[in-house]
Amino acid sequence: MSESQTQQLEMTDLAIAGRATLKPIVEIASAAGIDEDDLELYGKYKAKVDVFRKKAGEANQGKIVLVTAMSPTPAGEGKSTTTVGLGDALALEGQRVVIALREPSLGPIFGIKGGAAGGGYAQVLPMEDINMHFTGDFHAITSAHNLLAALMDNHIHQGNALNIDPRRIQFRRVMDMNDRALRDVVIGLGGPTEGVPRESGFDITVASEVMAIFCLATSIDDLRERLSKITVAYTYDRKPVTAGDLNAQGSMTMLLKDALKPNLVQTIQGTPAFVHGGPFANIAHGCNSILATNTAREYADIVVTEAGFGADLGAEKFMNIKSRFGGLGPDAAVVVATIRALKMHGGVPKTELGQANAQAIRNGFANLKRHIGNIRKFGIEPIVALNRFTSDTDEELAIVEELVRAEGAEVAIANMWAEGGEGGRDLARKVIQAVEKPSNFHHLYDLDLSIEDKIATIVKEIYGGSGVEFSAAAKKRLEEINDNGWSNMPVCMAKTQYSFSDDAAKLGAPTDFTISIRDLQVRTGAGFIVAITGAIMTMPGLPKEPAALRMDVGDDGKAIGLF
Amino acid sequence: MSESQTQQLEMTDLAIAGRATLKPIVEIASAAGIDEDDLELYGKYKAKVDVFRKKAGEANQGKIVLVTAMSPTPAGEGKSTTTVGLGDALALEGQRVVIALREPSLGPIFGIKGGAAGGGYAQVLPMEDINMHFTGDFHAITSAHNLLAALMDNHIHQGNALNIDPRRIQFRRVMDMNDRALRDVVIGLGGPTEGVPRESGFDITVASEVMAIFCLATSIDDLRERLSKITVAYTYDRKPVTAGDLNAQGSMTMLLKDALKPNLVQTIQGTPAFVHGGPFANIAHGCNSILATNTAREYADIVVTEAGFGADLGAEKFMNIKSRFGGLGPDAAVVVATIRALKMHGGVPKTELGQANAQAIRNGFANLKRHIGNIRKFGIEPIVALNRFTSDTDEELAIVEELVRAEGAEVAIANMWAEGGEGGRDLARKVIQAVEKPSNFHHLYDLDLSIEDKIATIVKEIYGGSGVEFSAAAKKRLEEINDNGWSNMPVCMAKTQYSFSDDAAKLGAPTDFTISIRDLQVRTGAGFIVAITGAIMTMPGLPKEPAALRMDVGDDGKAIGLF
Repeated sequence: MSESQTQQLEMTDLAIAGRATLKPIVEIASAAGIDEDDLELYGKYKAKVDVFRKKAGEANQGKIVLVTAMSPTPAGEGKSTTTVGLGDALALEGQRVVIALREPSLGPIFGIKGGAAGGGYAQVLPMEDINMHFTGDFHAITSAHNLLAALMDNHIHQGNALNIDPRRIQFRRVMDMNDRALRDVVIGLGGPTEGVPRESGFDITVASEVMAIFCLATSIDDLRERLSKITVAYTYDRKPVTAGDLNAQGSMTMLLKDALKPNLVQTIQGTPAFVHGGPFANIAHGCNSILATNTAREYADIVVTEAGFGADLGAEKFMNIKSRFGGLGPDAAVVVATIRALKMHGGVPKTELGQANAQAIRNGFANLKRHIGNIRKFGIEPIVALNRFTSDTDEELAIVEELVRAEGAEVAIANMWAEGGEGGRDLARKVIQAVEKPSNFHHLYDLDLSIEDKIATIVKEIYGGSGVEFSAAAKKRLEEINDNGWSNMPVCMAKTQYSFSDDAAKLGAPTDFTISIRDLQVRTGAGFIVAITGAIMTMPGLPKEPAALRMDVGDDGKAIGLF
Repeated sequence: MSESQTQQLEMTDLAIAGRATLKPIVEIASAAGIDEDDLELYGKYKAKVDVFRKKAGEANQGKIVLVTAMSPTPAGEGKSTTTVGLGDALALEGQRVVIALREPSLGPIFGIKGGAAGGGYAQVLPMEDINMHFTGDFHAITSAHNLLAALMDNHIHQGNALNIDPRRIQFRRVMDMNDRALRDVVIGLGGPTEGVPRESGFDITVASEVMAIFCLATSIDDLRERLSKITVAYTYDRKPVTAGDLNAQGSMTMLLKDALKPNLVQTIQGTPAFVHGGPFANIAHGCNSILATNTAREYADIVVTEAGFGADLGAEKFMNIKSRFGGLGPDAAVVVATIRALKMHGGVPKTELGQANAQAIRNGFANLKRHIGNIRKFGIEPIVALNRFTSDTDEELAIVEELVRAEGAEVAIANMWAEGGEGGRDLARKVIQAVEKPSNFHHLYDLDLSIEDKIATIVKEIYGGSGVEFSAAAKKRLEEINDNGWSNMPVCMAKTQYSFSDDAAKLGAPTDFTISIRDLQVRTGAGFIVAITGAIMTMPGLPKEPAALRMDVGDDGKAIGLF
């Protein structure tokens, strides 16, 4: 949420959430057609839906609306808010709609960032619970991940029958916490009875391959199969060692079996929403779970879902990774844009984004224009949602409308932070028209291309770059990938979200740049190859004044200072 | 559970649990008089009870029966089974009864040990859930603990205004996992942007001071106050630094506020049971939460609860620590004994415990006799529960009955693993008689004694030792404790459970031994001083063939190999 928005309403997201009247989740489920016997309640307002009970007959397959964004400002353009608000607006338009969102990570809440449950009057509730422990999914993922790590180190300590080279272990531990001090550690110290000393580190839970797997699994059996394929290390003779080699997949599956059931909550307006899974959008694919999206489709005619960061990252991964593994494709895509982001891409410094500047908007439109073109490359006709801020003038909004229409695309001004679903009715009507047309969705590349060619395709078609350079380390990894027969996996690009290029400072729609692939990471369980450009942070730190210091529990038993 | 018992019934605890028919937890709660509005459901068979809602009128205060044991064999004497079975037996005898137990730790489940939810036909259910994530309490405790650690390391990294000496940090991180490699680690590596390098380590979550605090807190405010008092480190000039100095207590409380509500489940027979909190019984006090015990008293005429390890450890700490902080005292104490343990204390090797040996039983009785005498020192008349195993002969059981009666104590043969509550009706009747008498309960020592004198009192009165020796390190700690005004806290003895002495090999009722205090640990948040004798493991490791390797999820979606 932006500062101006907070000032406008003089209320925080937490305060707005606190004033909302929730319906019992059994009522929300019942209205959505979810059998009460399939519900596992977590208090009165949260439930898991047991999707593993056998059902008779053919399941409904609702249309999918993917909400993505132009290249964002550091504050974000309101993608989650638009996703939630669009769901509410579609409900107001008489549609049978279910929203599917990612779960927020606990760690960053104590740093600077708020949650990812929407904002203002377009939020999912109970906001406090969703942002804190929720139904325990991330804790289960943390446990499953760290059990595999413990089994691996124990295997080495107990004789190392698999001949694991402790210097070539790629599987680290995770914690759902912003804890800088755990980024690089040496473990196994203390002598021969305390394990084998080696370098390692902790990532935040959302960066775990187990998290990515959790979000891509289509069943318990698929989950187990993917877990068993995680490459944890290499032997002294450079052969990959998997979780399956350690026989860890069964106990990991056991730890995850309940978490894998999608979580049902509601928006302030009472629209049903699945909030489930939340992988990083850089080193992973950044979308909620396939099980949640597909379950939402069973109970809806339209499912509104989102993908992390800008469309060059989130939407590309949704369409090339999640869509492929989940057997689903979007029927429409909404690209969230803001006047502030357009100005920023037009060269305006951060401190002056609140000032009127028509020319900067026209200049910055190049960024949005490229995203519009990119969405069309997947066979989808994009709709631009212009997320209104209080500092925006009517003239500025009109400029953007004109520019988007000149591209032949639909555009709607949305004001859902302040007005909830009512603020998105124009957008909703345009989305309804879009999903009524047959979808021409297709992936951008075929899996039988080489990893180099897949990366080159993304760089040229989506980023607008001229080519790709591989570091020496990345070239070595490419050989390894080919030798091990891993080249038929899709690519997961880890790149800055601020630019189409790998340089966060190159705003707008840069051309004539090459993308440098520093390293490639093999995620054989998730089923993709991560291509790393620049420095990627997998364990955030806390700032000098962490948000945690303002948090407490009030006399009413509710959280204080959560947002 | 013993092998012979398993063979007898040819069913595992998990199989027995799986065949039981559970009642919806709302029915269990309703029968116990718990208002449905106070319930927060976690599925159909688990609920948290919101004890923080204001209630009118005076709360009922049921009698407390503490289940403890003689010095155990490595397999344990069936204390949890007796606790659960006695609760069921008391219900069969027409009593209004609620059970209060500890939550099992996730970590050891993947090693060798099973859960701590009773066994056979004296179990709490749903066993699978209770042993895996349950309602997320331990995960919340892990998060709160590690948030404090992250805030501390971040404080040092961001300028260290409190002047913390990184070499004198006593607060480690925790994980609910048996992970040997994390016992001793170096963190903060990687250069100036990655934190300050220092030695540290991970304990298992049940060893966390936050866990001890969680179990001793009587309200949200008391929880926050205790958290703020945790001593995390010392400054360069040796002044203690607390969680309160770091202003971490509010956010930690926020993470724990829901977990702090006691969890309600049921036994196989349908008796209500609170399963809540589970601190180590060596470096902490080893009892379920005060809030659970006191909530159980509100809804019961008799509460059956247990304390970890043998009576020299668990019962002593229950009566000197938990009782003191919780404003509660036992009205009766049940000492669980087995023929196998008596034989072991009579000098029989582990492999021959199944063979008849009357003389060994008579010799080993010295151990049980001392425990009987010890319970009386707290003003409580003990009842011996002789937990029957299939290898026990009638003659052997008769010998024990005769020996116990010669001490003027009551004894009952219990067979609750195989028979459930029916197997404990004689024990139940004797317990009912005992709680009808007025309690003369008192603590063993006054808090204004010095730490040395408190330890000496425990060593002489409970262990039967002749004196105490303090290491040089412990002496230095004593000075520090006196200088900081911490000497008025109770003592928490960390000692082997296998012997009254600090030498696990000294079985029976050893005399003329001294206890060596190797170190003292200050737990200013929990409010006790830990006196450490010998080596205490706070992070277990996995065995060569971890139980995890046999675990999985079946086609029915249920856990396989959990026990």
